[in-house]
Amino acid sequence: MSRIPDDALLARLAHECGKQLHARGQMLACAESCTGGWIAQTLTAIPGSSLWFEGGIVAYAYSAKQHLLGVAGSTLQEKGAVSHECALQMASGTLDALLAAHWSLAVTGIAGPGGATADKPVGTVWFAWQARGKPGETECHVFPGTREEVRRQTVAMALRGLMQRI
Amino acid sequence: MSRIPDDALLARLAHECGKQLHARGQMLACAESCTGGWIAQTLTAIPGSSLWFEGGIVAYAYSAKQHLLGVAGSTLQEKGAVSHECALQMASGTLDALLAAHWSLAVTGIAGPGGATADKPVGTVWFAWQARGKPGETECHVFPGTREEVRRQTVAMALRGLMQRI
Repeated sequence: MSRIPDDALLARLAHECGKQLHARGQMLACAESCTGGWIAQTLTAIPGSSLWFEGGIVAYAYSAKQHLLGVAGSTLQEKGAVSHECALQMASGTLDALLAAHWSLAVTGIAGPGGATADKPVGTVWFAWQARGKPGETECHVFPGTREEVRRQTVAMALRGLMQRI
Repeated sequence: MSRIPDDALLARLAHECGKQLHARGQMLACAESCTGGWIAQTLTAIPGSSLWFEGGIVAYAYSAKQHLLGVAGSTLQEKGAVSHECALQMASGTLDALLAAHWSLAVTGIAGPGGATADKPVGTVWFAWQARGKPGETECHVFPGTREEVRRQTVAMALRGLMQRI
C-alpha cells in the first residue's frame, strides 16, 4: 500500500529533478491534464528553477490538448484523453511548443470523483516522458484515493519517472 | 498588513471563481509566470472544473512567453517580463491560444529571492485580466514575504481580480 506523497516529499523530488537537469545543462517542459499545473507549480517553487524549467502547458479541455499540444482529434475520439496515444502526443507536442526543452513529461488521467469508464477506473493515469529526438516512453498507473491523493501520486510518479530516464 | 492566504482560502477563492464562471456559462484560461502553475492547480483541484476551465500556460522562460503567448521580444528587452506590457500581451496571447475561453488572466512577477532590480523589488507582480473582444486590464502589486508567500498572495489576487470583473 503506497503512502500518499506530502508537500515535503513532492518538494524533495522536484529539488532532485532540478539538480539532475541543471547538472546536465538540460531543460524540462511539461504537459499536464489531471494534475492541472501541480507539477509545474512544484518545480517552480524552487528558486532558480528558470535555469532548468522552460514552461508548461495545462491542457485541461480537449480543445487545449488539440490546439496547444497538437493531439489528434481522432486520438481523443477513438482512444480517449486517458490513453497511451494521447500521453505520447502530449509529450511530443510539448517539445514542439517549447523549443528550449531537452525533456518533456506529460500526464493525463482520471483524478475523480467523476470520469471513470468501464475500462478506466478513477485513478487511471497515463504518463509519457520524452527526450528530444528520441521516442517517448509511457507508463500507466492506477492510483487509489481521493482526487487530491490521485493528483499527489501523479506528481510524484511523473518526477520519479523523469529521474529514472535522465 | 495583509495575511498570507493559506490553502483553504485559495481553495475557497477558486470555488467562488468556478461558481461565477459556471453560472455565466463562461470558460477561463490562464497564463502564469511567477506562480508557475499554482493558479491552474488551485482551479483544477475542484471536481468538475473542466466545465469552466479550459487550460493554462506556464510561461516561465522568456522563450515560453514568446513562443506560447506571442509576447514580443522587444517588450521583454525594453520593458522586461515584469511589466504592464508583458502582462497585457500574456493575457491576450492566452485568448489567442485557448479558443474556448471567454476570460484570461495573466501574472508575471518576481517571486524572489533573486531577480530584483532597482525599480522592481522582490514581490512586484503585474496582473492582467481580459474578456474576449475587450481590452485587457492590469494592476501592479508589491507583496511582502518569502517566495512562497509572494506566490500565495499572487494566486489570491489573480482570482479576486477576476471575480471583480466577471
